[in-house]
Amino acid sequence: MTLRIPAEDSRPRHVCTQCDTIHYENPKLVIGAIPVWEDKVLLCKRAIEPRHGLWTLPGGFMENGESTGQAAIRETLEEAHARVELDELYSMYSLPYINQVHLFFRARLLDLDFAPGIESLEVRLFSEADIPWQELAFRPVRFSLEHFFNERKQGKFSLHVAELAPPPAI
Amino acid sequence: MTLRIPAEDSRPRHVCTQCDTIHYENPKLVIGAIPVWEDKVLLCKRAIEPRHGLWTLPGGFMENGESTGQAAIRETLEEAHARVELDELYSMYSLPYINQVHLFFRARLLDLDFAPGIESLEVRLFSEADIPWQELAFRPVRFSLEHFFNERKQGKFSLHVAELAPPPAI
Repeated sequence: MTLRIPAEDSRPRHVCTQCDTIHYENPKLVIGAIPVWEDKVLLCKRAIEPRHGLWTLPGGFMENGESTGQAAIRETLEEAHARVELDELYSMYSLPYINQVHLFFRARLLDLDFAPGIESLEVRLFSEADIPWQELAFRPVRFSLEHFFNERKQGKFSLHVAELAPPPAI
Repeated sequence: MTLRIPAEDSRPRHVCTQCDTIHYENPKLVIGAIPVWEDKVLLCKRAIEPRHGLWTLPGGFMENGESTGQAAIRETLEEAHARVELDELYSMYSLPYINQVHLFFRARLLDLDFAPGIESLEVRLFSEADIPWQELAFRPVRFSLEHFFNERKQGKFSLHVAELAPPPAI
């Protein structure tokens, strides 16, 4: 493999020196749910790095062969063994410094038979007052939860689209 | 490279037999704009395959290091040499059969100095009555334009999220 700018392109790409195949690298989608039960939201305590031991919404990398909604439902099942029905797309955060786009869907938890999946230490419902705001794993999770609780008081949800700069180093 | 299910994973991945690096393959984002000038929308006639000679909204693969909005602005500049300011995210189509997610933003064309980029044969403004509905390149483009013109009459735009099954073979 070599790094060069292919004909009619403007960026360096990884190109196979034997067969000239261009291996494009593009941003990845991370997709999650905001699973709601009454006035509470379901969070997972991470059993894996990065951010082991911190709390997050269920979510993860979208896989080939699925839709954005299917990814949100699958990740919620895998990480929280929880079944949801999706409502609207609620937030989209671009993180260009790590080549990711994070999407969250509002969702209704269908029953209370949840349990930690292999990537979670604990899964729990939190009301707004109990959310561990200082122990959330990722900014897109924190911002989505802040918007969610604020807007729920107003009785009207809207899509949030934003770009995040790298987080402070310290 | 070999195809196998890594430990603690549930799907086959391409793994390097020398260094055990897992090369994940995930869906790619295709991002475009709906550039509006008065009652018209800017379309590009494709100079490349697939769908050479058919009309499309400016758009293309999101690149590493940019946000979703930057991708829409860049693609509009590259394909139509047109400058836009973005409005809201307008549509998101999952195409799981080709591992893509297509996003379109509504946008305002800032001036009339547009011209075909290297991937376009022609760039033109179309009013609703003139849109070449039978010569549109891709279904997400057609569906986004149909929603756009319908909703413009009602004076209210809303986000459209859908999953598309493979198109008919004939």
